[in-house]
Amino acid sequence: MQQERCSSSDRPLDPGCLLERDAERSADRLGCAAVDFPVAVVLPAGGSGERMGLATPKQFCTILNRPLISFTIQAFERLSWIGTVVVVVAKENHDLMLNIVQKCNHTKAKVVHGGTSRHRSIFSGLQAFSSTTDSLTPKPKVVIIHDAVRPFVEEDLLLKITLAAKEQGASGAIRPLVSTVIATTSEGYLDHSLERAKYRASEMPQGFLYDIIFQAYQRCSEFDFEFGTECLHLALQYCGTNAKLIEGPPTLWKVTYKRDLAAAEAIIKETLSMSACIIAGAEAEAVELAKALQKNLNMMETDVIQCAKESNTEYLSKTRNFIHISTTASNFLGTLDMAKRFEDTDHARLYPVVVVWVQLNMTKQSVDSQKTDELTAFRSLASEVIQGNVLLYGIQIDHTKVPEQWERSVERLTQITVALIRDRNAALTGQLLHA
Amino acid sequence: MQQERCSSSDRPLDPGCLLERDAERSADRLGCAAVDFPVAVVLPAGGSGERMGLATPKQFCTILNRPLISFTIQAFERLSWIGTVVVVVAKENHDLMLNIVQKCNHTKAKVVHGGTSRHRSIFSGLQAFSSTTDSLTPKPKVVIIHDAVRPFVEEDLLLKITLAAKEQGASGAIRPLVSTVIATTSEGYLDHSLERAKYRASEMPQGFLYDIIFQAYQRCSEFDFEFGTECLHLALQYCGTNAKLIEGPPTLWKVTYKRDLAAAEAIIKETLSMSACIIAGAEAEAVELAKALQKNLNMMETDVIQCAKESNTEYLSKTRNFIHISTTASNFLGTLDMAKRFEDTDHARLYPVVVVWVQLNMTKQSVDSQKTDELTAFRSLASEVIQGNVLLYGIQIDHTKVPEQWERSVERLTQITVALIRDRNAALTGQLLHA
Repeated sequence: MQQERCSSSDRPLDPGCLLERDAERSADRLGCAAVDFPVAVVLPAGGSGERMGLATPKQFCTILNRPLISFTIQAFERLSWIGTVVVVVAKENHDLMLNIVQKCNHTKAKVVHGGTSRHRSIFSGLQAFSSTTDSLTPKPKVVIIHDAVRPFVEEDLLLKITLAAKEQGASGAIRPLVSTVIATTSEGYLDHSLERAKYRASEMPQGFLYDIIFQAYQRCSEFDFEFGTECLHLALQYCGTNAKLIEGPPTLWKVTYKRDLAAAEAIIKETLSMSACIIAGAEAEAVELAKALQKNLNMMETDVIQCAKESNTEYLSKTRNFIHISTTASNFLGTLDMAKRFEDTDHARLYPVVVVWVQLNMTKQSVDSQKTDELTAFRSLASEVIQGNVLLYGIQIDHTKVPEQWERSVERLTQITVALIRDRNAALTGQLLHA
Repeated sequence: MQQERCSSSDRPLDPGCLLERDAERSADRLGCAAVDFPVAVVLPAGGSGERMGLATPKQFCTILNRPLISFTIQAFERLSWIGTVVVVVAKENHDLMLNIVQKCNHTKAKVVHGGTSRHRSIFSGLQAFSSTTDSLTPKPKVVIIHDAVRPFVEEDLLLKITLAAKEQGASGAIRPLVSTVIATTSEGYLDHSLERAKYRASEMPQGFLYDIIFQAYQRCSEFDFEFGTECLHLALQYCGTNAKLIEGPPTLWKVTYKRDLAAAEAIIKETLSMSACIIAGAEAEAVELAKALQKNLNMMETDVIQCAKESNTEYLSKTRNFIHISTTASNFLGTLDMAKRFEDTDHARLYPVVVVWVQLNMTKQSVDSQKTDELTAFRSLASEVIQGNVLLYGIQIDHTKVPEQWERSVERLTQITVALIRDRNAALTGQLLHA
């Protein structure tokens, strides 16, 4: 039986690990001040599909059209005090990994070939620094070893791991045990159960003085290379270094099963749906609708602005969800202009940007009867901007002066908008829905 | 560092644990033949929101509009060889739990009050059987203890646990350790790491001869009641019974964090999306479209049938996804008729049924210009049937004799249909999309 443990949310505390805001983030400043020595990362991602019994190894499975490993690389790359991220892959995935690095513009990543076991892969990663002729990868003081399939590692923990490694020679993240651990007899019966308070689960990241972990790998046996499970154990056994253990948050969990991919996707989508920007123009009815929508969207942080011109670029970098309200019967050109701009400015490179065009119909005549070619044009434009990772949807809402009817429509508009933003479903782009 | 472990799918192997098919399922017949003694279940669900620091305890969080605990109860209730399921809840959740039992028609469930700790709650659950005057809950030979937040337990494992408990007195599910377990020094340093092969994680379900576990609880100390974590440990300590350990599948995992709810939802939605029934009528164009759609929906098990009348009720009990193709410009009456029937026949009681009305437009005139009042009627009917857990969506597709154009449209129709079936998003019902 397990004790009940719970967390009200396991979204990363620091949304910056998903949404890179401006470079002046205070946590990063903290890291820069505290870390005055070179830090690098080794990310073993050697699992091949074959070995895992899957067509695609987990680290290459995509979430919102982007491989999981790219999220993990980004978690390090966004921190200015972290240098090279050495990604160790199986030979057969080398080109795939290079493509990912290029497409996602991971400027700090360096791809190397791994060995036939996890420990051999880590050693390969460490060796990438030992070649003094390669000026691109100078030997770091501290090296962080992490899992490619733990994308939500936060700066706070990385900083603690790094500083403890500098001071103690080795450090590692731990978590309380989720299940009771039991010892079994050779016949498959319960022998005894461990006292849970004395034990911890060893997780990632782990940090080491480069010289210590490199020496440990140079000294360790073939058996360690083949069957060893713990870098911390090698540092203890071969260098006499007792690692400092640091309790990490539940977000550290490792994407292991298919269901974990769904969980990771849900966390990313939830984080991307935390805020929205409503662009309302100057017309009174549109502004009124924007305010009503803002009130209803109380679970998100929303701003209402007048137009999406250059003076408002701060909003454009703050959120990846835009709701454009227009009152002209079928004028989605402003919306389109915005969508195209995202494509150009690289705003949608890492995460899909949602643009919801809300068409406020002021006439008695229903918008359903508007000309088919305009709708066709909207659909075709949506299928164009999706190439640049912009998801364009339309929602029509009929203006009315009957209060209950209007409230119902705004409520439906809210629900549909929330559904579109949360789901980020590519199959529904270009549709014109009705509130 | 953890070893890489993976599973190509962690959907329950037995879809029956989600989709109760006919009662003649072979596994259940097996269980009935092997288990000729009374078996009951105790499901501790005592965690209150307060204790967990959450507004809603996980077991009452909803997936597809139904509390998680209802899925767990159903996993037992569907098996004819299992009798009463005693659900132990905190006093403040008693009415809530009774409402769930009534709404989801859990005929085997009996709700009792729990104690102030998990062990006290389990003991309360066991005591429900010891009162001989209550003819509704006769004392079982074997009692299964499970977690309310592990909804995907399969019959195969329950059968093994039950038979081992009958033979050995106690049995429990185990899983390999996910992380390396380490012992820590009192100063927070690594002391040593455990040899992973010798240890296992103790999971749920566990099974006991009723007399053994009841006696163990009668004998155990206040300290055990307050801080104990393992029923298996109590059976060993107080009755000298070494439990038989049985390796369970990864689907046994416990819904602990918010992300686990997303993972559970993904598993349930994936299981519900495994099959679909396409109703095409007799018109040649509709049948042609049905066949093209069936070919594209190759990830689902699909059947094409002519009509949804009584002779086809077998399909209606086999799947929860229906695609109704009609060629008449706005005739959704057949679709509506079907949607209403699901409402009446209880087919959508446990899981929402998706009905996609595909409107194949044969005329040059676009369906976009069809009369507004018909669209309004469709939306209003969708908002009516959703009360009965039927999700009604519409998709228009224009017929064309230009092959590439037609293929593109059918491809879009496929993508939208898959998105609607997979997401089961209530906010989008009543919308008329365009392929």
